[in-house]
Formats: sequence, structure tokens, C-alpha cells
Amino acid sequence: MKSYEKLSRTIKAKQTMLCVGLDTDINKLPKCIGKSITGMYYFNKEIIEATKHTAAAYKINTAFYEQYGVKGWGILDSTISMIPKDAFLILDAKRGDIGNTSKAYAKAFFEELRADALTVAPYMGSDSIKPFLEYTDKFVFLLALTSNAGSFDFQRLISGDKPMYKHITDISSTWADYRKLGFVVGATHPNELAELRDEHPERFFLIPGVGTQGGDVEAVLAANKGVLSLINVSRGIIYASSGDDFAYAAKKQAEHYARLFKYTPID
Amino acid sequence: MKSYEKLSRTIKAKQTMLCVGLDTDINKLPKCIGKSITGMYYFNKEIIEATKHTAAAYKINTAFYEQYGVKGWGILDSTISMIPKDAFLILDAKRGDIGNTSKAYAKAFFEELRADALTVAPYMGSDSIKPFLEYTDKFVFLLALTSNAGSFDFQRLISGDKPMYKHITDISSTWADYRKLGFVVGATHPNELAELRDEHPERFFLIPGVGTQGGDVEAVLAANKGVLSLINVSRGIIYASSGDDFAYAAKKQAEHYARLFKYTPID
Repeated sequence: MKSYEKLSRTIKAKQTMLCVGLDTDINKLPKCIGKSITGMYYFNKEIIEATKHTAAAYKINTAFYEQYGVKGWGILDSTISMIPKDAFLILDAKRGDIGNTSKAYAKAFFEELRADALTVAPYMGSDSIKPFLEYTDKFVFLLALTSNAGSFDFQRLISGDKPMYKHITDISSTWADYRKLGFVVGATHPNELAELRDEHPERFFLIPGVGTQGGDVEAVLAANKGVLSLINVSRGIIYASSGDDFAYAAKKQAEHYARLFKYTPID
Repeated sequence: MKSYEKLSRTIKAKQTMLCVGLDTDINKLPKCIGKSITGMYYFNKEIIEATKHTAAAYKINTAFYEQYGVKGWGILDSTISMIPKDAFLILDAKRGDIGNTSKAYAKAFFEELRADALTVAPYMGSDSIKPFLEYTDKFVFLLALTSNAGSFDFQRLISGDKPMYKHITDISSTWADYRKLGFVVGATHPNELAELRDEHPERFFLIPGVGTQGGDVEAVLAANKGVLSLINVSRGIIYASSGDDFAYAAKKQAEHYARLFKYTPID
């Protein structure tokens, strides 16, 4: 509930649905920063500073940090500390496990790492997702239809009268209302996004896949029908330049996307 | 390939399919150890010492460690260092994300944390799984039919002529052969386990859900038909006693399960 309100408020205040993805990859750090784990911290510091006036939210893909073990978690933690208090923080961890394990993950990401929202994987069903929903002040984005090519393998298989991902959105909708649960819907599926938007007009969608992954901005905006959502751009912003001007280039790209994803309050 | 051979060799040498699950929960640590993060390390040390002669494999559910952030990863890392070299190490992390992210996870678990095998979540499809399969010396257990109650929500939905989990086992079987890819099949579904065993007679199955989760040992063994598999027991072994004798009780329970899950080489 608290997270839901924070997200609505932030999008309305900043008048944009832009979410900046901090998928910080050592191999893509600019020369002036240096390709090291500590470099990830300094890079994130500059990127956050350059985008904080425009981004409504930040999404951190935890894998990029976890891959460096203990050190990586340290960088993840200090990066989170730099996120401005008025920006919404999504940890993109795509977890989902049996109940007692999901409970441990919920504690890790909501408490230890102070996330406003988490991405959660649906395959293991209700008891793997409910521990996340038990945090009444937090928010969950459940993977429905992802932006990658592999989304065609299983997510769109038809069972009965609808595809798998609609079984997931329909069934999970009975577990929590729009103030607790939203969906991840890839920008690379604009027609399906439009349908899901009609079926769930009140839920937050987290929409990845614009930019490097090929999602079309116009099509996504049309499909989203002006409803509160977050549209994520990672590589298209943070790697806008690999030169000394990387922070300035990120700032400009963030401003560009913030305008594209402009949110005009209806009320 | 190397991992596959290690697993076959270890099961044959130890003549058991027992996998001990180190789902170490601070709240369940015995009084004599103390309920602290450091206590997790000392508990694991005693449990590994008590079970190393009987266990063919250890499965570490990473969530129990990740929930404590940087400190937790430290304990995870030192626990891994204590696993005997001849035991097979599965990190049960159930990851799966877009390609570049799965690549980061593969690096984290196979390289940084030295796992022989990983559990991987299937929902995001081929490009989320292939980065794990690219480690030719390692092994992947893909979630097919999990042991929890939520497995009835989506995994068994029928699409065309078969349930979702069979789409996953059939399609993923085209991505890698039995030396690289096996399946997680819960002990709580013995009939489905028997069917999958007939369809994939050569693949390793990782079978959780015996003990606390209610899977029936006799039914599982019959369904598995004497093929090389790993049968996991976590809580039923590591929390066999909450008293000072916890290590001795774990040793006895491990010996009990090792006998139950006896593997008799056919060749």
C-alpha cells in the first residue's frame, strides 16, 4: 500500500513513467571509470546523479551484482543507498521458490536491501508468491509476458481458452489487488500488452524491452492507454556514451525518454 | 560433462542417491550453536562433517544465505569451501532471466561459487537457460514439476496433448543432452515422476520433497525405476534434533536415508 502510493505519487510528481535500469556491466564501463567492481559503484553514482531529476523509478537487476559474490552485494547495497528517497526502487531479482525460501528472499530484498518492489517468477505458483505479498507495505511485479525471445517458448502456449501468461495474470489477480500486485509485460508484445491493459486497467505494469531489446515506443504508449505504468530503459540510457561524457549522455537520454514516456494526470 | 561424470561416479562410489539440503535457517539453529549468522557457519560445519561419508551430493538453497546480504554471501562462500571435493554441489538458486542476465548468474554460481550444478527456472524460455548450458563442464537441473502445493497452479495446465511441465521437458531436451541437462521433479508427484522417467530414461532427476514436504519414499523409488537420480532431504536431516546432539542425529538420519536411497550399479 505504502509502495503503491509512493509509485503513483512519484509518477504524477515527475510526470513521467520512466524507469532507469541499472544493469551495470563491468565490461561496458567507460575507460575513465575503469573496468573494476569498485568502478561499478562510481559509475552508478554518476548515472544516478545524472538521471535522478528525470527518473520516476530505478530498476536494479541484481544478477549484475550477485555475480561478484560478497563484493557484488556490497556494491548493490551502496548503490541502493544512493537512490534518492523520492524515486521508486525495484529490485529485479525474478525470484520464486517454495514458501519458506520465498520468505527468505522477501526478507532479503524488502528488508535487507530496502526495495519498494520486487519482480517475482510465477512458475512455482501461489505458495511461492504469497510470502512476497505478505509485506503489506511493498509491491510485487509478477512476470507475465517477458520481453525476450524465449517468451515464445512457454508463456504463450494456449491452455483452454487462453495463453499461459493470462492464466498467470487471472489467477494471481485473485491473490492481491492492484495496490499490491502488478505485472511485467514486455514492450516487444504491444498487442498482448493492449489486451492485458484492457483486462487489468487498474494494475501497474512494469514494461521492459524498449530500446536495445527492440520494443517500439509509440506502440507501447498506445497499448498502455495512458494508465500508470513504468517503462524501463537500461542500456539505452546508461551506455548512451562510452566516453568521458557518459554521465552527460545518460542525462540527455534520460530526459529524452522521460519526455517520450510523459504522464499527464487525468484527474 | 565433467559435472555429469562426477555425479555418476559419486553416486556409484557412495552407492546412494542421497542429497543433503543445507537449508540452514537461523531460527532453527540449536541452542548450543546460537541463533546468529555466524552460527549458520558453525552449524553447517558440523552437519557437513556428520554427513560427508553418506551424502553423494549437497544442495544449498541460496535464499537462506542471500537474505542476510553481504554477510550471508560470506557464509555461503565459506560453507561451499567446506563441502568435500568428492561430493557433488548443487546451488539451488532457481534463476532464469534475459540472456545477458542469465550469463551473469551463470558466472556467479559456476565460477564465483564453484557449483557443479544449478537449478534454473524455465518460464522465460530458451535464451534465459542457454547461458547456463554454455558451461560445458557444468550441469543444469531445470524446474519441471516442483514439490510444492503451488505446482498445481500453472505447471499442470494442459496445452494441446500434454501439461505445461512436459512442454518444458520436451522442448528443453532439444537444447542439451543428458550430460548437461536434467530435471527437478518433486517427490510429491510420484505418478508423473514415473511417466517422466519413462520418457527421459537417461536424464538425471533431482527429486526434492521427501520428508517434511510429504513425498513418499517407497513411491518415489518405484517411480524412479533404479535410474541415477538425486533424492534430496533437507529439514528431515539437518533438523533431526534441536538439542546438543544435533550433529549426531543428522548423521543417523543421513545414514538412514542413504540406505533407503541405495543405488546398486547395474553394470
